[in-house]
Amino acid sequence: MDNLPPLGDAPLKQAPAVDDPTVPGFLGAAAPCGLRKDGRADLALIAGERELAAAGLFTSNKLPAAPVQVARRHLAQGRARAILTNSGGANAATGQPGLEACQRCCQEAGRLLACDPHQVLPCSTGVIGQLLDDAKVRAALPGLVAGLSPQGIPAAAGAIMTTDAFRKMAFRQVEIAGRPVRVLGLAKGAGMIRPDMATMLAFVLTDAAATPAALGQVLAPAAGHSFNRASVDGDTSTNDTLLLLASGRAGHAELNPGDSGLAELGAAVTQVCQDLAAMLVADGEGASHLIRVLVRGAPETAQARAHCYAIAHSPLCKTAFAGQDPNWGRLLSTAGAEAGRRGWPYDPARVNLWIGPAHICQGGLYGGPEAEAQAAAVMKQNRYQITLDLGLGQGSFWVLTSDLGHEYVNINADYRS
Amino acid sequence: MDNLPPLGDAPLKQAPAVDDPTVPGFLGAAAPCGLRKDGRADLALIAGERELAAAGLFTSNKLPAAPVQVARRHLAQGRARAILTNSGGANAATGQPGLEACQRCCQEAGRLLACDPHQVLPCSTGVIGQLLDDAKVRAALPGLVAGLSPQGIPAAAGAIMTTDAFRKMAFRQVEIAGRPVRVLGLAKGAGMIRPDMATMLAFVLTDAAATPAALGQVLAPAAGHSFNRASVDGDTSTNDTLLLLASGRAGHAELNPGDSGLAELGAAVTQVCQDLAAMLVADGEGASHLIRVLVRGAPETAQARAHCYAIAHSPLCKTAFAGQDPNWGRLLSTAGAEAGRRGWPYDPARVNLWIGPAHICQGGLYGGPEAEAQAAAVMKQNRYQITLDLGLGQGSFWVLTSDLGHEYVNINADYRS
Repeated sequence: MDNLPPLGDAPLKQAPAVDDPTVPGFLGAAAPCGLRKDGRADLALIAGERELAAAGLFTSNKLPAAPVQVARRHLAQGRARAILTNSGGANAATGQPGLEACQRCCQEAGRLLACDPHQVLPCSTGVIGQLLDDAKVRAALPGLVAGLSPQGIPAAAGAIMTTDAFRKMAFRQVEIAGRPVRVLGLAKGAGMIRPDMATMLAFVLTDAAATPAALGQVLAPAAGHSFNRASVDGDTSTNDTLLLLASGRAGHAELNPGDSGLAELGAAVTQVCQDLAAMLVADGEGASHLIRVLVRGAPETAQARAHCYAIAHSPLCKTAFAGQDPNWGRLLSTAGAEAGRRGWPYDPARVNLWIGPAHICQGGLYGGPEAEAQAAAVMKQNRYQITLDLGLGQGSFWVLTSDLGHEYVNINADYRS
Repeated sequence: MDNLPPLGDAPLKQAPAVDDPTVPGFLGAAAPCGLRKDGRADLALIAGERELAAAGLFTSNKLPAAPVQVARRHLAQGRARAILTNSGGANAATGQPGLEACQRCCQEAGRLLACDPHQVLPCSTGVIGQLLDDAKVRAALPGLVAGLSPQGIPAAAGAIMTTDAFRKMAFRQVEIAGRPVRVLGLAKGAGMIRPDMATMLAFVLTDAAATPAALGQVLAPAAGHSFNRASVDGDTSTNDTLLLLASGRAGHAELNPGDSGLAELGAAVTQVCQDLAAMLVADGEGASHLIRVLVRGAPETAQARAHCYAIAHSPLCKTAFAGQDPNWGRLLSTAGAEAGRRGWPYDPARVNLWIGPAHICQGGLYGGPEAEAQAAAVMKQNRYQITLDLGLGQGSFWVLTSDLGHEYVNINADYRS
């Protein structure tokens, strides 16, 4: 069975407090530069006091935004000095002019930070197809650099929000070789969330000391157990970026791939990513429920995974979640449809389904009014789990998803206006 | 290029009139039997005056409803006398009791029609997981049989409606060997529509003379060019059934597989199915727009098809359609995400996109304010086409879909109550 992180019962649209959102060796700042129409802060800078070790994961979308193309290239050396992020425009589908605008921003940030422009990692988020107005960004950069401070990271987390209802930060502290090590994550994202890095920017900052290769070894499984199991609407954006930066200020010996200390760091990074991923789904546009879909008893993991996503992406299931309706037949049917489409085995008589602890479907049949009443009560909760056991094997997987209610339609029907 | 049926500009929630909804050799009747809470007619019988030749296609869902299992078995002989359909319950996920309830209904209908019960094809539609109360059906059957008449087919079409906003019928007349041949189709379905036969019941009745094998040869391509290109919400139901029945009363020589007359019959059946499929999508729950997504320039048909469905199933694209927002970046991104997920080629610089005639994206870049204004005007229409040219090859495909607005959420959030 998969090791399941706790779901908790916190209200959905509220970030847990982070008492001390600082990490030795990191500075942050944010400012409005005029990209957003509403005048809110739309430019964020996170910088190392010195050069940082860095690893990253990017969208699998074949229409990668200009900043994704540039950041991927800049990361090749595994060293970075800063992350420069704007909201108010994705700078995707903007061709060569978009690339050049992005590069001019990196140039200017590099000049002001006295570092190689290749050590600046750019990120953008917002509407696809809008060319970045880099003059606005460059005009704001001197003030932003002047305002960098160890306390500035929450402001940076705020400036990358788009349709986010709340600022997303998560924190863990671990011990590595007797030294306390801090891991602070910040993220944005609410719609367009799905595995393979959806419109989601997430930055994880640590004062651990680790080589870029060691950071990469930590980051991939952390993403696999967090962001790559979060789905709001099945879309994978052009701009998704997950970055892990390490300042080395904790003072322990530098970790290399395979070092035992990496396990502690990896666990903390994974937990921070899981916290952030749950916040992304909880903030799913218009979501009023956070649902973990656990499929077990599948012939193999890949099949459990596909069934998880079939349910997590089914508008019929998601509207039933919104309506708090224990419509177990739809869940069974969605799994049956997926099996039919893929030519996979599926035997209704072996299927069991729980909504929370309510055994709503037993051997493919209705679990009775008592189970239904219990399931209906579970579905009123902020957070709950649906467990589908196919009774065919040992494969299991889980994903986090949200319900589909009116607010999703409100937000997305004319997002651009 | 695919041969595209006309989209028309008719209001969405209104069936075209069928002047004479009769077919020689066919009788119909409908009645309320108490399965629906609202007292509406919920039982429909369509019967041949004599034995009929029959072919059918059924859901690919691996949780097939009891009536699907029974009808599939009954159809094995290629002969049928009647279709017995109820709304007010799908009789799916009901196990052995569901099968037996279904069989008792066929028994009773066979007794009253003086035919083998295996010549009765059962269909059900409604909520999954509710066992059919066959006593209600059997009690209503004598009256239903007594009420059979050549004019009763529209009443039968009305009785199979669930969330349908209007009754769906379509008609064509063709000539085969100098004889006029009538083809009348009726269907139900609004939500849960997607290829592989979604919750959709469709019956096509003709007075052509054809063997069951010839009918099968006609039906599969007709479905492939109609129902299997219609998607409202990506779900494939447990109960989908498409039946083609022929009375032979037109008086021409019986058509066998490969006979030239089959082309005429096939064209008429395809057109009737296309009309019905467009009505299903137009009646998509809460839909205010019928959109044909045409993808061309793909390396192969399979890739064009996958891109069509990626767009047709994307909540982000569908809410933009509802908001009449020419958000071309989302369309491009959805295609790029699909290509990324599948590892397929995708070159933004070769991509062109039209919304109606508006060339909103040229070579992967914004087509300018004039094209955008034109696209915005197109998106106010009831029906329009989106054309995505990938610029990579000769593969093309199209599907019909609808937008995703508030009414969809209203209908599906608590469909069962």
